[in-house]
Amino acid sequence: MMNVPLLVGSMLERAEKFFPNKKIISRTQSGIQRFTYRETAARTRRLAGALASLGVKKGERVGTFAWNHHRHLELYFAAPGMGAVLHTINIRLSPEHISYIINHAEDKVLFIDEDLLPLVERVKDQLPSVEAYVIMTDKQELPETTLHPVFSYEALLKQSNPATEFIRELDENDPAGMCYTSATTGNPKGVVYSHRAIVLHSYAMGLADTMALSEYDTCLPVVPMFHANAWGLPFAAAWFGTNQVLPGPQFTPKLLAELIEEEKITIAAGVPTIWLGLLNELEQGSYDTSSLRSIVCGGSAAPRSMIKAFETKYKIPFLHAFGMTETTPLATVSRLKSYQTSLGVEEMLDIRSKQGLLVPGLEMKVVADSGEVEWNGKDMGELLIRGPWIADEYYRDERSEEAFRDGWLYTGDVATVDDEGVIKLVDRTKDLIKSGGEWISSVDLENAIMAHEAVFEASVIAVPHEEWQERPIACVVLKDAYTGKTCKQELLDFISPQFAKWWLPDDIVFMDEIPKTSVGKFLKRALREKLKNHLTQSTEA
Amino acid sequence: MMNVPLLVGSMLERAEKFFPNKKIISRTQSGIQRFTYRETAARTRRLAGALASLGVKKGERVGTFAWNHHRHLELYFAAPGMGAVLHTINIRLSPEHISYIINHAEDKVLFIDEDLLPLVERVKDQLPSVEAYVIMTDKQELPETTLHPVFSYEALLKQSNPATEFIRELDENDPAGMCYTSATTGNPKGVVYSHRAIVLHSYAMGLADTMALSEYDTCLPVVPMFHANAWGLPFAAAWFGTNQVLPGPQFTPKLLAELIEEEKITIAAGVPTIWLGLLNELEQGSYDTSSLRSIVCGGSAAPRSMIKAFETKYKIPFLHAFGMTETTPLATVSRLKSYQTSLGVEEMLDIRSKQGLLVPGLEMKVVADSGEVEWNGKDMGELLIRGPWIADEYYRDERSEEAFRDGWLYTGDVATVDDEGVIKLVDRTKDLIKSGGEWISSVDLENAIMAHEAVFEASVIAVPHEEWQERPIACVVLKDAYTGKTCKQELLDFISPQFAKWWLPDDIVFMDEIPKTSVGKFLKRALREKLKNHLTQSTEA
Repeated sequence: MMNVPLLVGSMLERAEKFFPNKKIISRTQSGIQRFTYRETAARTRRLAGALASLGVKKGERVGTFAWNHHRHLELYFAAPGMGAVLHTINIRLSPEHISYIINHAEDKVLFIDEDLLPLVERVKDQLPSVEAYVIMTDKQELPETTLHPVFSYEALLKQSNPATEFIRELDENDPAGMCYTSATTGNPKGVVYSHRAIVLHSYAMGLADTMALSEYDTCLPVVPMFHANAWGLPFAAAWFGTNQVLPGPQFTPKLLAELIEEEKITIAAGVPTIWLGLLNELEQGSYDTSSLRSIVCGGSAAPRSMIKAFETKYKIPFLHAFGMTETTPLATVSRLKSYQTSLGVEEMLDIRSKQGLLVPGLEMKVVADSGEVEWNGKDMGELLIRGPWIADEYYRDERSEEAFRDGWLYTGDVATVDDEGVIKLVDRTKDLIKSGGEWISSVDLENAIMAHEAVFEASVIAVPHEEWQERPIACVVLKDAYTGKTCKQELLDFISPQFAKWWLPDDIVFMDEIPKTSVGKFLKRALREKLKNHLTQSTEA
Repeated sequence: MMNVPLLVGSMLERAEKFFPNKKIISRTQSGIQRFTYRETAARTRRLAGALASLGVKKGERVGTFAWNHHRHLELYFAAPGMGAVLHTINIRLSPEHISYIINHAEDKVLFIDEDLLPLVERVKDQLPSVEAYVIMTDKQELPETTLHPVFSYEALLKQSNPATEFIRELDENDPAGMCYTSATTGNPKGVVYSHRAIVLHSYAMGLADTMALSEYDTCLPVVPMFHANAWGLPFAAAWFGTNQVLPGPQFTPKLLAELIEEEKITIAAGVPTIWLGLLNELEQGSYDTSSLRSIVCGGSAAPRSMIKAFETKYKIPFLHAFGMTETTPLATVSRLKSYQTSLGVEEMLDIRSKQGLLVPGLEMKVVADSGEVEWNGKDMGELLIRGPWIADEYYRDERSEEAFRDGWLYTGDVATVDDEGVIKLVDRTKDLIKSGGEWISSVDLENAIMAHEAVFEASVIAVPHEEWQERPIACVVLKDAYTGKTCKQELLDFISPQFAKWWLPDDIVFMDEIPKTSVGKFLKRALREKLKNHLTQSTEA
């Protein structure tokens, strides 16, 4: 068979040849702009030429600091298309982490949205590798900036000597992109995506049994393009000739609802908070969402009640998926099997609330101390994944040793597997409570407590215990109206029907606030530190 | 990213893990047998162990001489699953060609269906590489045979020390299978399929925009498993957990119609003559074919009238596809684009009658003497294909040089490309008529002539001509009732409205019979030889 490498550039070339009039619909600061794939490919070739003229060479990193829009999409193909590496930078990181990752990746050029300039200007003196800043704006004039040397994206495109075709002299294992993922402690960790990984991942997204991404779709990636390649959608959508709607900066639930109605979106992808916001918006306004054939939800677990609302009230099929920056990211999709479609509504919801079935091309194991767990939907173990679009290291990072062992990615997620092979994530390994040799899911307890009307938020942590090694303690913030009126016992009584007795928290600690990370997740590490002597002290007292 | 090879064995392992109760429904000499994927995987592991015990080593060829049934499917995975190479032998070849390819491939073991034994016995003395014959039968006792040494498939499975898992110590470019394709002259030419090619090809079959093969399907590969891996369906269907119905030996249109109704087939694949037979059967009998979501048709061009009958009369969506033994085989699928679904019925039929759009992962060019042709649906050129599941040579064969040049497969097919990038095959390069620097399609003329009620069959060939280099001559066999009653001019008048004047044949030669190849195709070479002086002689006369 021919030795033809799987390359990212070829994917856009396919759209240009076979779907030249399909559309990129891009919202920027100045409104909605529309491009055909023919125009997008021509602009991307000019951009590839511009990168070369800026001195970017094969294998060098091109950083992006941008929302979801057509110029970011052009960079998605131009950088790998000329042999460079697309480095998408998470704009929500702290200034320290932003400068760390730009330096760690040694970005040679940075492409920056006009409204995000201040975030880069703050760290500009700490970026020795960066030789040029390119500003992405719709305006003719460049904005005032302290960055130097600075170029206009559109001016570069105009002057460019366009690439005649995308590079073919590459190994498919050469890097095409990279993205950093936050760590619990320390600096973010870099994941490098190969051309091969992106192409294989795109196949996996187009399968009838996964997301079935198709030329018939109009796709709305709400998930940021600076986050795990917007789940790979921009690549796969271009390959299949799918219309793409890129929602731009600072969008609101209202704007998303309008885009869905006006652009007749068929498939939209984002994290649960996005869909909670949309649900709220749909309940207030009146929108036609009948074009939607799927809402894809990942990033963290989607609440069952939300899935139910979309499916039953709005008749919008909900596709729960799971992945990580380390997995390119699609790993599992929760879709009913052919013989499950006549189950009752609640049973089907049970299945759809899980993270789902591994997509073709990957392998998994769920491993406890005693070895692989039984597929009974109960036994918990850490999820291990292997496959051609799974990272095998963090880029130049000693922490690789923890996560990548014996050819497997240790996800740090604790899961159960039911007898259909469907996984359900129950906790992070570091948050799991190990009590007397048994495992207790902090997430299950939190969800149960948060269902009580008095509770604003709850975080359950493991606290050292002399006899049982660890025991669960719940940290609870009550809603204002309930403060001082709801007691420990009431909450324990509320949740006790759902759990074995030994699962129930040894104590409930009421707090004014639960400490959080920069991306809004519970900072359990701080809680554990604060309460590390809680159970030994109470025994002594 | 992890260096995980794409391997055929993993595909069956996925079915076993995630779809253990989905079914293989196999028709053999003794009737219908049913196996789950769990059982199939267990039997296949035993078979892999049996191959090892027969002395088969990594890279060695395992020949099969068999219909479509469960044992053949087990061989599809057991041979590559233990590192060997599955060599499927076309049972319809001449004895000379059968012994040639077994020797050329150096098959070490031959697996033979009981009813096909005589075909192998005829050549047994010419097969020095074969060390063992395994007979596939449902009976306890082995049949009488002159082959030696001979084993029973089921007995081997019983005694086997099963492989615990399929081999992983392989390069994905290692050979997994091979198949020989007939040549116009000389011996058949061998194509070797790598693990990588088969896995990538399987992705391409599962895409929503190609065949959308899915776990929701029940698939009936009518195309023989000895012909280009039954178009790759057994591999892809296992990977996706699709039920497979294997129709076994000597099936009839009636049997296919019954299988479709009883097993609720959703997708069936075969050559046009199969579907012509089924159409005839559907018109005579009364069958429920409502489960069918697609008939996939390839191998040769499907007549427009047949497509229309399936689509309009029986409401069975018809998927016209194109591929060759050299392309694993799926290369194009004819499916309407999203913006073509509101066209008129005839316009849609025009599109669906073409060979279709290249599947993601492949590249093509259509090249005439003057370079790449315009995509205008008119200009003709030879179709060239490139991609990771396209052969780059014939196995140990000097004829490779003609077909594989500059990194492209020269298909030998002449095609047009319309402005949507859809190809239509118009002829074989060797059958095309080159008249005064312009090209004339023999196939178009044949189809036009065969539409006349008096014509039983027609073959149009190029005959040397002094002024125009070549001119078309039609060789026509009339139906008995019309013999002597239909004249040359009547046929020419009948077709002339459809063609430019210079396309019309210079002569029509009536014959009793048109010589054919062993697989029933017109033997145009013999006609050309017979008529080579036809135009010069007639001028002289």
